[in-house]
Amino acid sequence: MAESKLAKLRKVLSGKIDQGCINYVVPDLWNAWDYDGEEMRKLPSNELLVNPYRFYCRVIEKFILPNKKPRKNYGESLSKIHNQSLKEDELGGDWIRRSVLYSTMIRSSSAWDHDRSFSLDIANFDKMKETGTFVKMLALLPLIKKIGIDTIYLLPLSRFSLENKKGELGSPYGVASFFDLDPNLKDPLTGNVMTVEDEFKAFVEACHVLDMRVLIDIIPRTNAIANDLIKDHPDWFYWIEADSISNYKVPYVEGLPNTIPPEPKYMQAVYDSDDVLRHIHMFRKNPKEIDSMKWQKLLDADPDNIADAIASEFNLRIAPAFSDHINDVQPPWTDVTFFRMFLDHPVETRKYLSDKNTPPYILFDTIKSNLFPGKLPNLELWETLASIIPYYQQHYGIDGARIDMGHALPKELLQMIISRAKEQDPDFAFIAEELNPDNAATAKKLGYNIIIGNGFWMEPRIWEKNLHKFVYGAIDIALPMFACAETHDTARIAGRDGGRVLARMLTILNMLLPNLVPFINSGQEVYETQPMNTGVDCTDKDKFKLPVDDLYYGKLALFDKYAFHYLNENRWELADHLDGVKNIRNDWIDQLMDTESYVPLYFNEFDTSAIGVSYFNKKTGKCLIVAANSNPYNDVDCNAGIETLRDKSQNRNLTGRLLYATYEMGRDYHDFAPDGRIYFHLGAGEVKVVEF
Amino acid sequence: MAESKLAKLRKVLSGKIDQGCINYVVPDLWNAWDYDGEEMRKLPSNELLVNPYRFYCRVIEKFILPNKKPRKNYGESLSKIHNQSLKEDELGGDWIRRSVLYSTMIRSSSAWDHDRSFSLDIANFDKMKETGTFVKMLALLPLIKKIGIDTIYLLPLSRFSLENKKGELGSPYGVASFFDLDPNLKDPLTGNVMTVEDEFKAFVEACHVLDMRVLIDIIPRTNAIANDLIKDHPDWFYWIEADSISNYKVPYVEGLPNTIPPEPKYMQAVYDSDDVLRHIHMFRKNPKEIDSMKWQKLLDADPDNIADAIASEFNLRIAPAFSDHINDVQPPWTDVTFFRMFLDHPVETRKYLSDKNTPPYILFDTIKSNLFPGKLPNLELWETLASIIPYYQQHYGIDGARIDMGHALPKELLQMIISRAKEQDPDFAFIAEELNPDNAATAKKLGYNIIIGNGFWMEPRIWEKNLHKFVYGAIDIALPMFACAETHDTARIAGRDGGRVLARMLTILNMLLPNLVPFINSGQEVYETQPMNTGVDCTDKDKFKLPVDDLYYGKLALFDKYAFHYLNENRWELADHLDGVKNIRNDWIDQLMDTESYVPLYFNEFDTSAIGVSYFNKKTGKCLIVAANSNPYNDVDCNAGIETLRDKSQNRNLTGRLLYATYEMGRDYHDFAPDGRIYFHLGAGEVKVVEF
Repeated sequence: MAESKLAKLRKVLSGKIDQGCINYVVPDLWNAWDYDGEEMRKLPSNELLVNPYRFYCRVIEKFILPNKKPRKNYGESLSKIHNQSLKEDELGGDWIRRSVLYSTMIRSSSAWDHDRSFSLDIANFDKMKETGTFVKMLALLPLIKKIGIDTIYLLPLSRFSLENKKGELGSPYGVASFFDLDPNLKDPLTGNVMTVEDEFKAFVEACHVLDMRVLIDIIPRTNAIANDLIKDHPDWFYWIEADSISNYKVPYVEGLPNTIPPEPKYMQAVYDSDDVLRHIHMFRKNPKEIDSMKWQKLLDADPDNIADAIASEFNLRIAPAFSDHINDVQPPWTDVTFFRMFLDHPVETRKYLSDKNTPPYILFDTIKSNLFPGKLPNLELWETLASIIPYYQQHYGIDGARIDMGHALPKELLQMIISRAKEQDPDFAFIAEELNPDNAATAKKLGYNIIIGNGFWMEPRIWEKNLHKFVYGAIDIALPMFACAETHDTARIAGRDGGRVLARMLTILNMLLPNLVPFINSGQEVYETQPMNTGVDCTDKDKFKLPVDDLYYGKLALFDKYAFHYLNENRWELADHLDGVKNIRNDWIDQLMDTESYVPLYFNEFDTSAIGVSYFNKKTGKCLIVAANSNPYNDVDCNAGIETLRDKSQNRNLTGRLLYATYEMGRDYHDFAPDGRIYFHLGAGEVKVVEF
Repeated sequence: MAESKLAKLRKVLSGKIDQGCINYVVPDLWNAWDYDGEEMRKLPSNELLVNPYRFYCRVIEKFILPNKKPRKNYGESLSKIHNQSLKEDELGGDWIRRSVLYSTMIRSSSAWDHDRSFSLDIANFDKMKETGTFVKMLALLPLIKKIGIDTIYLLPLSRFSLENKKGELGSPYGVASFFDLDPNLKDPLTGNVMTVEDEFKAFVEACHVLDMRVLIDIIPRTNAIANDLIKDHPDWFYWIEADSISNYKVPYVEGLPNTIPPEPKYMQAVYDSDDVLRHIHMFRKNPKEIDSMKWQKLLDADPDNIADAIASEFNLRIAPAFSDHINDVQPPWTDVTFFRMFLDHPVETRKYLSDKNTPPYILFDTIKSNLFPGKLPNLELWETLASIIPYYQQHYGIDGARIDMGHALPKELLQMIISRAKEQDPDFAFIAEELNPDNAATAKKLGYNIIIGNGFWMEPRIWEKNLHKFVYGAIDIALPMFACAETHDTARIAGRDGGRVLARMLTILNMLLPNLVPFINSGQEVYETQPMNTGVDCTDKDKFKLPVDDLYYGKLALFDKYAFHYLNENRWELADHLDGVKNIRNDWIDQLMDTESYVPLYFNEFDTSAIGVSYFNKKTGKCLIVAANSNPYNDVDCNAGIETLRDKSQNRNLTGRLLYATYEMGRDYHDFAPDGRIYFHLGAGEVKVVEF
């Protein structure tokens, strides 16, 4: 059995406690586990002044290790650790249907201005790292556990490129190496004794000990412009002349509308466009193909910056990526490029090329290779891409993955990726980056266990009743979707109209919805208002949700130095609510995920802000009713019929028990009336849960 | 010319700037001089994160040294530096009548929790000192200068005893050595390169360069029980048996009322008292007199703790002091004792002693040696006491002194002290610790330039009209008194009923009163509410003016680790007001101190809350009218006759110019009416100043 890196981390931290008399604070929210260091001082700011070595050592000793069982290798996936055999009717990885996910970018979730210098430093006054690290993330696990999370979904962790980087730190989506971890996630607390790989292993082990799974995010379609693969595989990329880069832009197709998907029917028009031709003519063969001797000489010189060297020797550079939608208004993505999934031009569109020797080029069709495959798959590349997840499985014991833009990959490649992972671990789970519920059945066939779905867009739109539509419609979708009101790409729910009340209502309600999987975006639990990225469902204004004198005003966690507002005066509120609601969820999880146990709750008025779902337990006859008022400003009095529920559950019991209410327990809740209805008074944004 | 310690300090700090990248904050109030360090970061707390070496170096370079004139020795008193010759009609030291005093205890005035550890540390995380030091006090001089101060009065600076110490740090009034400085005032910023003496010299130089004088506080009547003089002069103290200390208490005289002064008429009753006899019988001869051989042996052994050694070898210890008022309810002062001013019993009361060989004892008469002298003055002691001020004059160039309890010293000793100092510097100023205005004439005869007076008690009592009595009566007092609303011994004015408004009104009004000298108690300028000591005019409740979660709750600056609340949201308000008012004062200082130029202002109603004074300039005919509303809650409309002022000034000008108003300039101020009256609308606690 491999050495436990968690045990090693504990030992290393423990041995350095006497070096820890430094000026180091953490938010009190990071201590949801009763830290007992005698040096701790509670500051008026609600920060705790602690010895960091002791603090992180104790969270391992006090909160994590007591859950460890003997003779288990926590470096394997949780399914392997628990030796779970799949139920017959279950697709491997379907544990994710019963899970509660927490989406986190370690760099920001565990970031803090530890020396209170009003600056988030890579090395602060005490040489401590203030951006997030795996080690510091351990102190957040107690809070994450408290709010009911059992699955941690990590945004990309790989080393990314700093060329043309976005924001202060660069985007983790601009991957430079699939197999190296982002060195910034290493914590100086362990000195040189542990590597960032060791620390990630320790983190995954800790999650597994706490019965939490770990998912990663892989990005097989794009890569950083400055990546590690160029040297060995210049032919995997698209090239243009280096000195033409300033003319590089997304070609505009006259006569077609803006932002339409690259369907075959538009391709004639695309290739007829002068601007498209201009664009295609910018591309060149790769430098190795142009002059393999010179290429070898360049490699032998081992330049520090290969891209610069290629530019000066060959006047070539890799072409930036752009959206695959025709006439999208987004400018090119200057930090990333596309992989060449096929070594020839698309079968469907090659007919439009006058010169069959046209060098490989980036266009709406070539990059959408699920719709426009070639005949010559780039098998060596596919092998590499399919080996990423097995690498993380073998080295870190991860439990699942999301495939970024998986729907745009060649179907065969996608199946390679999925099957290789399932060979390692039949219970490995896959999340499809599929936003359209209509495509759930296709995703299911491809081997995905869950799709993202459109909850993040539907749920916040309470006034348009999209929340109602989403909840009432979810039961009919072929795969579960995420029950979520925000993601790392969207506006924050607490930053929208309705604010904290709306955010609280949705976060609680999401825990008890049918065929939906709760998904909490890190920061959401403390009502963070600033989005991490403004990529999806955002306006420009959303970037400026914070007061101008806030340290993070105008900053985006995905690209900048950013720490969440863990000192928010309501920082414990949602956690305390979820702490209770998670128990109801655990008691009813079988029914929540069983379409047969679900009965929608219809209220007296058609246009009511109230929304409700109910479940019955076939064996016990017990029923659960969940009602919420989607209006964050006004109370509502409402009632719903429960005859169907009674019939199905064969339970005529007339006494209900209020399990949860957002405001004071028992306030204005009317019991079942003899007319076969249940009466609720629901405060603004209130959720009530009744069992009978 | 002696080396400038200020120049040396600048050099030492400058040389260590590269060591200053540490976590060090100061309140923004310490930067009333536009610090330009590029590393400075303004924190949301209104603290500044600075390189301390550069910060304190720059205040010398930017704010202090530019005022330096060539060929001056700023280590001498300001009068010597300016080569001031006395005006014929002036008592030497009368510059203090025109001054504005700032009373400060360096230890607390320049204290700050620089590392924000919510603990005021002697050595913080960065080994920096958080209690006050002379070096840090330099950064406060710009603020002090801004509020119009030209004289800094320092509470005791000498090394004090830590035996039976009061509070966390001990009281500076328990002096252990007259000639050593309190080593706690040394700043580690200068390392070992400078001594605390060097740093005090640098501080006095800095004040002198800024045209500010420095006064010290000397305490010739008492000394710490554990002091440096015992070894050489055991006969200068009173002794009791060491193992009887638990029975030592203030003798109670049956038949006399509580807390009456020790007048000769009560002495028969005192000596008739059984409890007084019990008390007198506790005293013993000094150890040297008892056994000089054994004493010498003890000294030769050079014990670490001489008091403990005497207790174990002789069963003797020095008797604690207590109040000289008969039947005072205060317990003995366990940390200090009295000096034996005379070597024999008092002439007046020795007749009451049955045994003329009774060892020296502490009693209401023996310790009140101005009223009850002996025949044998302790001349060697007197020489020592009279040498203290000359020592500070020669070494530090101080400009004046307050003599603690001077009124209780033998008259001849007091005259020695005063004359020795005036020999060194004829313009040296003396403050009498005389609270009773009736004794001003006597104090003047003794050579004092000013008395403390009873302003601190009268001014806050606005509802009893004691403020009115004090202001209107001050002109008739033989010496100027302090115009003050608080001292380091009393409750804080901002902590009294009327709070900030009352504090602001009195502090501003005090700048423009006749025959009164403005006196600001450090912290008053930021509306500090917690007293520094509860010795005078305080109730027990006054000790708990702060919120319970305040770091300094229940703490007293005189004894405990304490920093003023420099982050108070109104911290700049009073400073900004005083910054304006000081110019009016400077323009009218001759008239303020000339009884002939003063005309009281009488308002239309006898019982009005309005109060006013006026002055005229004989040469120019200009007049100044100062009116204030002593009511901190309600506005008042009032008018006052100005016929007398017009007559005396021979100025019939009917247009006035509003020079200052506490609220918006010009609001509701009515010009002079043809009826020969001036009409004011005064807001709650407002001061208005009009010139015509």
